[in-house]
Amino acid sequence: MLTYHLDPHSATPLYEQLYRAVRADIMSGALAGGDRLPSKRKLAANLHVSQITVETAYGQLLAEGYLASEPRRGYFVQPQLAVPSPAAPAPAPSAPADHAPDDGCRYDFRTNIVDNGCFPFATWARLSRSVLSEYSDRLLRSTDPCGAVELRQQIARYLRDCRGLGVSPDNILVGAGSEYLMQLVIQLLGRDRVYGLENPGYRKLYQIFQANGAAVRPLPLDKRGLRADELAKSDASVVYLTPSHHFPLGTVMPAQRRLEILRWASAAPRRYVIEDDYDSEFRYASRPIPALGELDRAGRVVYVNTFAKSLAPGLRIGYLVLPDALMARYRARFSLYSSTVPSFDQHTLAAFLRTGAFERHINRSRKVYQARRDALLAALARELDGLPYEVSRAEAGLHLLLHMRNGMRERELVDRAAAVGVRVYGLSAYYTPPVTPPRATLVLGYAGLTGAQIDEACALLRQAWDAAPSGTAEGAK
Amino acid sequence: MLTYHLDPHSATPLYEQLYRAVRADIMSGALAGGDRLPSKRKLAANLHVSQITVETAYGQLLAEGYLASEPRRGYFVQPQLAVPSPAAPAPAPSAPADHAPDDGCRYDFRTNIVDNGCFPFATWARLSRSVLSEYSDRLLRSTDPCGAVELRQQIARYLRDCRGLGVSPDNILVGAGSEYLMQLVIQLLGRDRVYGLENPGYRKLYQIFQANGAAVRPLPLDKRGLRADELAKSDASVVYLTPSHHFPLGTVMPAQRRLEILRWASAAPRRYVIEDDYDSEFRYASRPIPALGELDRAGRVVYVNTFAKSLAPGLRIGYLVLPDALMARYRARFSLYSSTVPSFDQHTLAAFLRTGAFERHINRSRKVYQARRDALLAALARELDGLPYEVSRAEAGLHLLLHMRNGMRERELVDRAAAVGVRVYGLSAYYTPPVTPPRATLVLGYAGLTGAQIDEACALLRQAWDAAPSGTAEGAK
Repeated sequence: MLTYHLDPHSATPLYEQLYRAVRADIMSGALAGGDRLPSKRKLAANLHVSQITVETAYGQLLAEGYLASEPRRGYFVQPQLAVPSPAAPAPAPSAPADHAPDDGCRYDFRTNIVDNGCFPFATWARLSRSVLSEYSDRLLRSTDPCGAVELRQQIARYLRDCRGLGVSPDNILVGAGSEYLMQLVIQLLGRDRVYGLENPGYRKLYQIFQANGAAVRPLPLDKRGLRADELAKSDASVVYLTPSHHFPLGTVMPAQRRLEILRWASAAPRRYVIEDDYDSEFRYASRPIPALGELDRAGRVVYVNTFAKSLAPGLRIGYLVLPDALMARYRARFSLYSSTVPSFDQHTLAAFLRTGAFERHINRSRKVYQARRDALLAALARELDGLPYEVSRAEAGLHLLLHMRNGMRERELVDRAAAVGVRVYGLSAYYTPPVTPPRATLVLGYAGLTGAQIDEACALLRQAWDAAPSGTAEGAK
Repeated sequence: MLTYHLDPHSATPLYEQLYRAVRADIMSGALAGGDRLPSKRKLAANLHVSQITVETAYGQLLAEGYLASEPRRGYFVQPQLAVPSPAAPAPAPSAPADHAPDDGCRYDFRTNIVDNGCFPFATWARLSRSVLSEYSDRLLRSTDPCGAVELRQQIARYLRDCRGLGVSPDNILVGAGSEYLMQLVIQLLGRDRVYGLENPGYRKLYQIFQANGAAVRPLPLDKRGLRADELAKSDASVVYLTPSHHFPLGTVMPAQRRLEILRWASAAPRRYVIEDDYDSEFRYASRPIPALGELDRAGRVVYVNTFAKSLAPGLRIGYLVLPDALMARYRARFSLYSSTVPSFDQHTLAAFLRTGAFERHINRSRKVYQARRDALLAALARELDGLPYEVSRAEAGLHLLLHMRNGMRERELVDRAAAVGVRVYGLSAYYTPPVTPPRATLVLGYAGLTGAQIDEACALLRQAWDAAPSGTAEGAK
């Protein structure tokens, strides 16, 4: 007779204790396939529990297929229920990857950071509360697969007013960030395509295209941005661009080059330009440069942008603007995908745009970032005085380029900076494959540092770089 | 001399009106490449505006590459700026696809619906507000790429208490819904794999695998679920299962079959089982069936679930449980993907789980759905009395199967129901490729209908089906 210790004072009900005990015996092999279990009456008496308890436990074991019942014969253990043992020990989990490697650096000139201090959180929270009251349980329903109409209307208005793009809300597709949206674009345009990417460029993008099985071709740039002649010579049929502000070189693609690329796209069927307009809001010397999509009359530009940079990374909302033909294809083939953004966040963002809070926030942020850029330029001028260097591409975006000509190679500049607690980034890492550029150039993102931090960091950089380069020093030994 | 009408009373600043006007002339060809523009002083005088206005407009045109300036010579229009005309007229956008086609049906037995009436919105809103106050601007930051730690801890606790799964929060990956997560799984396991899918099964899944470039093999089921022998004979190295409650057949896979499939997975390297546990919370006759992953000792089960069904479709949060080796691979290769779920929603859901509101909601929903199922069984018994039919698989989930044996084919049953305003769904559509099953079987989802609606719908079904089948009637002519 089966005998288990069941604890009537446990939080786990008696039937569940019994179910677990029998099940463990079956899985360990203590109860073998074909074994007959005691009748409910007998087991109940043996364990001093009610028959209902045994019946419930047996019922669960029946439902899960551990037992079979045969009329008038009783309950039998099903055969072959030994749990397979592992073929090999599972590898130990690796430590989570660090996103901002902590090597003791006090100052970090990384580019992928925004200053949440600018964000009008009180306004956002107030709008959140009113969305909760106003929309109430309508927030529980999925939005349209392309995103809430209210949000798409506001995005269309913003694009018209601030980016010179006249688009219909029907051409907008809202999704969970630009990385997700790029994966959709690859599905929409085809994984069998060859995609031309800017080189240097946003390295993560290469990984995203490759993880999605699409072939990529790195295409070189000149001072006007991606070279249209190299694009035409390549086998790419889609090209990805950051025309308003190239990452990381900062180039603004002039109108002529834009039109050359649009002519390339129109010259053959199924050619497309993906325009990533990622930080176009932040331009200090002139108005924001209008989007390339504005010049597109042939429906060949897919526009992508995100609120992660202009608002907050924790708000995972981006959007595509698709030409009519591609939107029709999306609706036909991919409407199966539900919207990836919670309704609540879509409606709160729509309210944030509608009330003008977004534009006020952008204007305020632009001033903050401009002040940081100015602080960085001033600190570099002060601290690096006497060292040969040049700054470029400081007129827009959240980073600038620092060309050092003190004889140190890029690697040495980066390592010496790290040794004094300042993390800077070499331009070479943005090339595919990584190259040693002819000049030592650093990419300095300033959005995440205050003026005081910038001053201190630049003073440290002076210490780090104010020495004979190691190559020369060695040569002098 | 250029002459434009500029409106000093417009909301658009004068410099911008001028910039737009010159730009339009360049794009239309009215100003051609090489044309010299008037000096700032002369144009300002001509237009009766300040020189600053002209300077700002010219500056923007320079920044965008429409003009070039030559020292001491002035401003020149850049060449080749005619906008390319469309190669072909863009096709008209198609109408958005309907999700629930509105053909005048008053009652719809669709399966992909939940009743938001059960949702404790007041509790959710209260937790939302306290998350806004408590977390404040920390909500602006991205969470860990795998999801907020607080949420992963709560999911691990829930899986332990309610699904019999002992997993670490480190093995959980939170994402924007199960469709997105399946795309990640395909990237993680490989697009070059062959994936075995249940047939019949969830049709959308076939589309998702195919849209992501993965090969699929439909695998047949018997009364215990997916056939392990057919799986072993196929070239699939990954199999997707709904073991707790097969969609749409409702089969609970018994322990023996689960172990057979786990043995298959352990028998060769790189074999995996994807367990979709989609509506395991809703089981009426016994406790929920524990997850298959619980029996996995070899790290071969990828578990996927979503809160869309158990909470609300508008809350776009699902999760994966990955075995150690796969999580290590994810961290190494895909940490580049930011979390796809806004921080705010992750923290609110964590609070909803932590306070026990989720479990109370599930228990309440289960009672509501059980009452609807009971209402449907009673209405069918009452209304279809005298007609030959059989109901099966009513013990779990949010739908049941109705086998009609009144001589009508599935198509006729569906069409006649639609003619009286009731939408029902034939089982044949869940097969790949669609088949004509030997018996006429309908899949009736009841989660979206009240008891009264169910009564009225069943009375209408009686009218629809209480006639000689059209085949017989025609035969009698």
